[in-house]
Amino acid sequence: MIIEGKNAIFEALNSNQTINKLMVQNNLTDNMSNQIIKIAKDKGIRIDFVSKEVLDRKTTNRHQGFVGEVTDFKYGEVEDIFNLATKRGEDPFIVILDGIEDPHNLGAIIRTCECAGVHGIIIPEHRSCAVNDTVVKTSAGATSNMIIARVGNINSTIEILKKEGVWVYCLETGGDEMTQTNLKGSIAIVVGSEGRGVSRLTREKCDKTISIKLKGKINSLNASVATAVVVYEVLRQRG
Amino acid sequence: MIIEGKNAIFEALNSNQTINKLMVQNNLTDNMSNQIIKIAKDKGIRIDFVSKEVLDRKTTNRHQGFVGEVTDFKYGEVEDIFNLATKRGEDPFIVILDGIEDPHNLGAIIRTCECAGVHGIIIPEHRSCAVNDTVVKTSAGATSNMIIARVGNINSTIEILKKEGVWVYCLETGGDEMTQTNLKGSIAIVVGSEGRGVSRLTREKCDKTISIKLKGKINSLNASVATAVVVYEVLRQRG
Repeated sequence: MIIEGKNAIFEALNSNQTINKLMVQNNLTDNMSNQIIKIAKDKGIRIDFVSKEVLDRKTTNRHQGFVGEVTDFKYGEVEDIFNLATKRGEDPFIVILDGIEDPHNLGAIIRTCECAGVHGIIIPEHRSCAVNDTVVKTSAGATSNMIIARVGNINSTIEILKKEGVWVYCLETGGDEMTQTNLKGSIAIVVGSEGRGVSRLTREKCDKTISIKLKGKINSLNASVATAVVVYEVLRQRG
Repeated sequence: MIIEGKNAIFEALNSNQTINKLMVQNNLTDNMSNQIIKIAKDKGIRIDFVSKEVLDRKTTNRHQGFVGEVTDFKYGEVEDIFNLATKRGEDPFIVILDGIEDPHNLGAIIRTCECAGVHGIIIPEHRSCAVNDTVVKTSAGATSNMIIARVGNINSTIEILKKEGVWVYCLETGGDEMTQTNLKGSIAIVVGSEGRGVSRLTREKCDKTISIKLKGKINSLNASVATAVVVYEVLRQRG
């Protein structure tokens, strides 16, 4: 897999991800570039210094002088998410994505969840965007620091979470206003796909439906924005 | 909408109209052509230089070497924002964007602000994405229900807002945690550009800097996500 951009490369270097090769633009002199090159050299990673044109041909997006070939993304397990929460001494805080299809949305959600200290994200194997190059890039490297579990069946996983004492909230219109709902303790938030929202069966599996206040004429927020708003409300309530 | 001819393009460039793209005939050397091209370049408008034949096919009338694609969006005034707040019987709630450059971010922010009942958005004339077709599309139509004022100088506008009794908060790292800050009353939130954040001068003009808690290794949220999180915190505090 190809990753590009200073932040993505920097995060990959500081994670457990394996970088096979780094292509770096000639004559970069800024601090961050020097820092990245130093870390890569320290780690014994092969670095090819090339002209900007070579990188332009290699990628479509903005590479900022850095393109890396990394091993494909390694998904985690639901169990890893619980272990991380235990390790941090916190109640589990999980985000379940019921079929996000847009890689930009998935990347943005992963970035936000990483910033907010979410312990893990669960996505379904089917009818969902996987962690591809665009997701990694959009996440600003957050994919390197986030446990993402891919499961065969979201509904079965929700059953497992509930048995582990996790309260599962469905984020949809028509529920209780989120700021009026107690979101402390072990929780998972289910966010639906861009077009269809949360599927009926999944919604029924959840303990409760919560909603974000909408005061305008447009009747929905973008999926990544909605996730961010509710994730930060959880963080606020946790104090 | 397509406009053509030197005068029409020149007028559009000097008005509040948004030009998405300019197609200019190769090898024009007259003064007016040079002037138009210079203004368009200064405004960051995409210019495609093409042969006369391409323009002939694109339009029916006399194009004089210039064809532009403009967005039919009408900007409002800062005064309109205050009037809307008064009409709704609410304290003014304004979002100031100090140089958002990505149309997807701008569109997403407009959509979120519309959903959250923000009274208006202020953007600068220069070094900022204008409300172009991509913005309109990304906003899911919210541009039709949102007052967006384009001002020559953000800092002067902040002075005016402060004289009107508006508290102006700068959203940046290193400030007071937003959930611990009183965000009730008349307020404006200044959000910086994707790369540079809020400019130093603008930051100094603000009454206070507020921040969003970051618990991960990634040290920043996407601009549209950060705006959404703080806008909904304001909404929560307003009750």
